[in-house]
Amino acid sequence: SRSINLAVIPGDGIGQEVVAQGLKVLSAVLPQDVKLETKEYDFGARRYHATGETLTDADLEQLKRHDAILLGAIGDPSVPSGVLERGFLLKLRFAFDHHVNLRPSKLLPGVETPLAGQPEIDFVVVREGTEGPYTGNGGTIRPGTPHAVATEVSLNTAFGIERVVRDAYARAQARPRKKLALVHKNNVLVHAGHLWTDIFHRVGKEFPEVTTEYMHVDAATIYLVTQPERFGVIVTDNLFGDIITDLAAAISGGIGVAASGNINPSGDFPSMFEPVHGSAPDIAGQGKADPSATVLSVALLLRHLGYEAEAVRIEDAVSVDLAERVGKPARSTEEIGDALAVRVAS
Amino acid sequence: SRSINLAVIPGDGIGQEVVAQGLKVLSAVLPQDVKLETKEYDFGARRYHATGETLTDADLEQLKRHDAILLGAIGDPSVPSGVLERGFLLKLRFAFDHHVNLRPSKLLPGVETPLAGQPEIDFVVVREGTEGPYTGNGGTIRPGTPHAVATEVSLNTAFGIERVVRDAYARAQARPRKKLALVHKNNVLVHAGHLWTDIFHRVGKEFPEVTTEYMHVDAATIYLVTQPERFGVIVTDNLFGDIITDLAAAISGGIGVAASGNINPSGDFPSMFEPVHGSAPDIAGQGKADPSATVLSVALLLRHLGYEAEAVRIEDAVSVDLAERVGKPARSTEEIGDALAVRVAS
Ligand SMILES: CC(C)[C@H](C(=O)O)[C@@H](O)C(=O)O
Ligand SMILES: CC(C)[C@H](C(=O)O)[C@@H](O)C(=O)O
Repeated sequence: SRSINLAVIPGDGIGQEVVAQGLKVLSAVLPQDVKLETKEYDFGARRYHATGETLTDADLEQLKRHDAILLGAIGDPSVPSGVLERGFLLKLRFAFDHHVNLRPSKLLPGVETPLAGQPEIDFVVVREGTEGPYTGNGGTIRPGTPHAVATEVSLNTAFGIERVVRDAYARAQARPRKKLALVHKNNVLVHAGHLWTDIFHRVGKEFPEVTTEYMHVDAATIYLVTQPERFGVIVTDNLFGDIITDLAAAISGGIGVAASGNINPSGDFPSMFEPVHGSAPDIAGQGKADPSATVLSVALLLRHLGYEAEAVRIEDAVSVDLAERVGKPARSTEEIGDALAVRVAS
Repeated sequence: SRSINLAVIPGDGIGQEVVAQGLKVLSAVLPQDVKLETKEYDFGARRYHATGETLTDADLEQLKRHDAILLGAIGDPSVPSGVLERGFLLKLRFAFDHHVNLRPSKLLPGVETPLAGQPEIDFVVVREGTEGPYTGNGGTIRPGTPHAVATEVSLNTAFGIERVVRDAYARAQARPRKKLALVHKNNVLVHAGHLWTDIFHRVGKEFPEVTTEYMHVDAATIYLVTQPERFGVIVTDNLFGDIITDLAAAISGGIGVAASGNINPSGDFPSMFEPVHGSAPDIAGQGKADPSATVLSVALLLRHLGYEAEAVRIEDAVSVDLAERVGKPARSTEEIGDALAVRVAS
């Protein structure tokens, strides 16, 4: 008989509320014969204040034993900027080698977009997750003086680029339009940029059916708002991916519905699934948060574990739920979760 | 009697066409008593192919003697990516210490935007122009092998940050709403980010009337499309500024109307003014390019040299011209230039 052994990290702010709904929908969608085991972990601001710890080696040992991780949000204004991001979120992505950071953008029927004329939006960003300017490589000399100098070093390896580029080609190949865009800034960041561009072209020879284009990151922001229908799959560096996926979320329904997967395709370590939105402390505890992004992250999780039919059932349920919201009064986090659970079960 | 001694660099692609119109409008707007001298320089792809040179020390010596520089566009697909960008554009910005890269965004009446509901957009981005990941500090080992590693180093100094932050505060202070946002990514790029943030807060004490906020660059892309009216002045790093100003241009009428100044406020070296768009080789030589961005760059140039009334006359002329385009057939580059020249003269 089948089973899923899930690590659950509700985290800070609205994380608690949205993860509860994600789990509710997960239980509702799973067939009877699948045994779901969950273990909750208390990471984030509370633990940091109590113990000074963000993510220890012992924590990683425990998390490693799960099939996958569902995360709500980590981050709180009471903790200095960077401590939980570097000490927990990025530490986990790096420790578990989550090199494929998958962020789909699809504008569903009835969903509001800030763009005029309801364009067709249906693309996936494959963001590199373990390299680039995110490696924490940098430093400051003479801090607090007029002679301070701070550096940030972007590290890019052929190994790291090739595996994520190949993953993106395979995803492009599997989609009807077979389109892949590389987004970088190879006219200024010439070292990293040329390495990305060379590997992108070389790996492309293995995928002759995929149509490719190269685009500078600045130009990509223009196309995302003027011609979003242009994109199929986008592959890009860790920092550029961070920036353009927030823009992509904004134009395709907002971060209330933006899901993401931090994937280790080798399966050596569990992959982690999380909504793109943060902990939103301003609305935490009020039942106002939209759990859809977390529920859609559960769909990505199920697809990753091989439950394709269940993933599609969740995505369809969210799509219908969003379309039916139009013109109706706002519902609470729990009401939306309940409605989705009923829908995926039936 | 007054005089302007201008270096003119038409450059590649549509650069030639748009600069001709910029100069036409400049001549038309200047009072009789101002003597305008221009000297044209042949930089860009043609010269590079002929001589292998992009910008020599002797070139810099000559350019230095001018009061300001008007540039069309540099860049051509026949030249490998990065050669002209690093060898000319960035070399000039660095050599002449153009640390204030000024990019206003204003959605003028009647101008199309990809955003729904014609929001109010009127902000200025002050992009740092001489530091960050643009310093060309990086390298590649084992190129062309599976073990290649490429780095890019972002350099940030208290000196460089403080002067541009102070410039941005002064601009915010001079505007009716007195709002300034710092855009960075201080939760991940903690070294550079904390240096920027500390200096931003320290300098802020000198400008108690200015309301400030901090925003991560990813969040900034969301606000730019969902609440662009939120912004007054934005100050940011070289790379983040590159990215968000293309997005800012896209939402406020497109790069056909986006002007910029590469300013050295000390006056030790001439400042350079250029449209944000590139050389657009696909439409070069066809009289299709919109010269408005170049004409608006001429307005920034005049303002920088102290000709405020003339700058405003140009901006008003472009504004009226854009509003009158609605529903009319497209005009050529030259027709638009002629119309603007007539308007600023009258
Ligand atoms: C919180 C932060 C570390 C993170 C990132 O920059 O990757 C977030 O913005 C994201 O996109 O998941
Ligand atoms: C062409 C390139 C070097 C340049 C930059 O990145 O600064 C351009 O994109 C700009 O914004 O002026």
